[in-house]
Amino acid sequence: MRSVCVIGLGLIGGSVLRAAAAAGRTVWGATGSTADSDAAAADGFAVASMTEALKRAADEDALVVLAVPLPAVDEVLRQVADVAPHCLLTDVVSVKGPVADAVARSAPETRFAGGHPMAGTSASGWSASTADLFRGAAWVVVADDDTDLTAWRAAADLAIDCGAHVVPVTADEHDAAVARISHLPHVLAAVLASCGADGGPLALALAAGSFGDGTRVMGSRPELVLAMCEGNRPALLAAVDDALGKLGAARGALASTGSLGATIRAGHAGRAKLVDIRSADTERVTVDLTGRDAIDELQLVGVQGGRVVAFTGDIAIAELPVLEH
Amino acid sequence: MRSVCVIGLGLIGGSVLRAAAAAGRTVWGATGSTADSDAAAADGFAVASMTEALKRAADEDALVVLAVPLPAVDEVLRQVADVAPHCLLTDVVSVKGPVADAVARSAPETRFAGGHPMAGTSASGWSASTADLFRGAAWVVVADDDTDLTAWRAAADLAIDCGAHVVPVTADEHDAAVARISHLPHVLAAVLASCGADGGPLALALAAGSFGDGTRVMGSRPELVLAMCEGNRPALLAAVDDALGKLGAARGALASTGSLGATIRAGHAGRAKLVDIRSADTERVTVDLTGRDAIDELQLVGVQGGRVVAFTGDIAIAELPVLEH
Repeated sequence: MRSVCVIGLGLIGGSVLRAAAAAGRTVWGATGSTADSDAAAADGFAVASMTEALKRAADEDALVVLAVPLPAVDEVLRQVADVAPHCLLTDVVSVKGPVADAVARSAPETRFAGGHPMAGTSASGWSASTADLFRGAAWVVVADDDTDLTAWRAAADLAIDCGAHVVPVTADEHDAAVARISHLPHVLAAVLASCGADGGPLALALAAGSFGDGTRVMGSRPELVLAMCEGNRPALLAAVDDALGKLGAARGALASTGSLGATIRAGHAGRAKLVDIRSADTERVTVDLTGRDAIDELQLVGVQGGRVVAFTGDIAIAELPVLEH
Repeated sequence: MRSVCVIGLGLIGGSVLRAAAAAGRTVWGATGSTADSDAAAADGFAVASMTEALKRAADEDALVVLAVPLPAVDEVLRQVADVAPHCLLTDVVSVKGPVADAVARSAPETRFAGGHPMAGTSASGWSASTADLFRGAAWVVVADDDTDLTAWRAAADLAIDCGAHVVPVTADEHDAAVARISHLPHVLAAVLASCGADGGPLALALAAGSFGDGTRVMGSRPELVLAMCEGNRPALLAAVDDALGKLGAARGALASTGSLGATIRAGHAGRAKLVDIRSADTERVTVDLTGRDAIDELQLVGVQGGRVVAFTGDIAIAELPVLEH
């Protein structure tokens, strides 16, 4: 089993370190945060300086996992290029296009496949990390036309070892999708929380489930939310424009006819599709990773809402949801 | 203890019937839904025809509780005016101005104080009702300048018996507040669910906590959401305009400077205020319901985010949150 070197030991990086260790991997980490470093060491994990950690990764052909916020990625990549320029590399940052650009810019000789585990909590830091954070979660591993399949497989193996399922998609498709289902929800939650607080103590005293649910993610640290959302600017702008159009249409219909029927029914249908895809029967397909169309076939799994759940030799075993609509 | 007659035996009406019975009240109900009627009777509750239920309420000077959707309120009120024209009357409909207008129009001789328990689930119907749905919840009982204090007290006593705390506010203040913290969250959840579903199976397959939380209320029946939101049209329009302005400002900032800082920080602060008010220390104040300024003093409790938690004779005991901002 390949060793794993995690750079950044917050909630996600810490959880990767714990989960990989729990799966029997040799693991070590590095972080710029003294608090996270001390806490990880106190929990018995090997923590080194950035240079030492990357040097060991080069020596042992470990998989290096970037788990720092997007604004810190370039600086870490420059160190990777210095110390472990040809390493197997993945990341767990929430946008994939900008990270791929940074790798091409700062560490172009690495064997890289980007990643993004779709898991988290509103807490942050090593102290919030757990070995089972990723259990049953979707974990994107980018399969672009030029992705190195060895790197893709190394990242995918880690995801499976962490208890996740692998969603193979292009970086662009990933960024457009997470703008809709992760970044837009944060922006709308911020707007809702502001609108509620503007109603004063009475409004907040009356707030029940819908406001509590709709604003929950605003309990997260603003810096982390900002790094995530702002890093996906073009795709998020498109998603916000879509939301502005739909909210404007709702406003217009309510003002002119008094009806929100189209808005609420579309929302109900959208939520039903979420429930459907989570409870759908699945059909099994396989992708031969040695085949010439392997990347195309992997992309097709992702775009259909499918997940790679295991590997047998060079064969990826995927499950596709069987959807009625 | 005053008897209680509940008209409408869905989630809220059914839960009122159960909770009042559990508090030792004599209770009976009526509903136009055969399914709810059969289910309530099967659970051992007295269910009569609308006319019989209201006749008994008039005979026993019971508190009549309207628990039907807003579109059905006028028709029920006409029957109230026919059979129990002077009864003590409250309601549990989610908007207060339109119900007060309907009472003034259709049953003007009743002794009326509107109500709204801030509790619910995404399930509906008698089968979802429980005796403890209102435990610890806020329950608005409208205290307008012309509210009959006997009716206010009767409704407030029921709320306390159901385990809730009473929030006394004007109908207008209530409707503006719930537009922000209940109806706007439903509209934004609908917009978000549509935007997510438009991303296709891949987006839905990647959806994690923020999208799940932000769309949860779209699991509710569209007819109930529509009756609630559309019934509060003027106040909801104002809240939607506020949200459109804030979302447009976020869009502009992201496009021009790349920053969502103002949006996300305001949202984080708004969410923090919600958490603050829920965990705040409280100070105790009392309102003498026989005093000439009783209504003013009750309104002041509500507007500060306070709740009446008990009565001692004619004295209402209220708790006000002690807020730092």
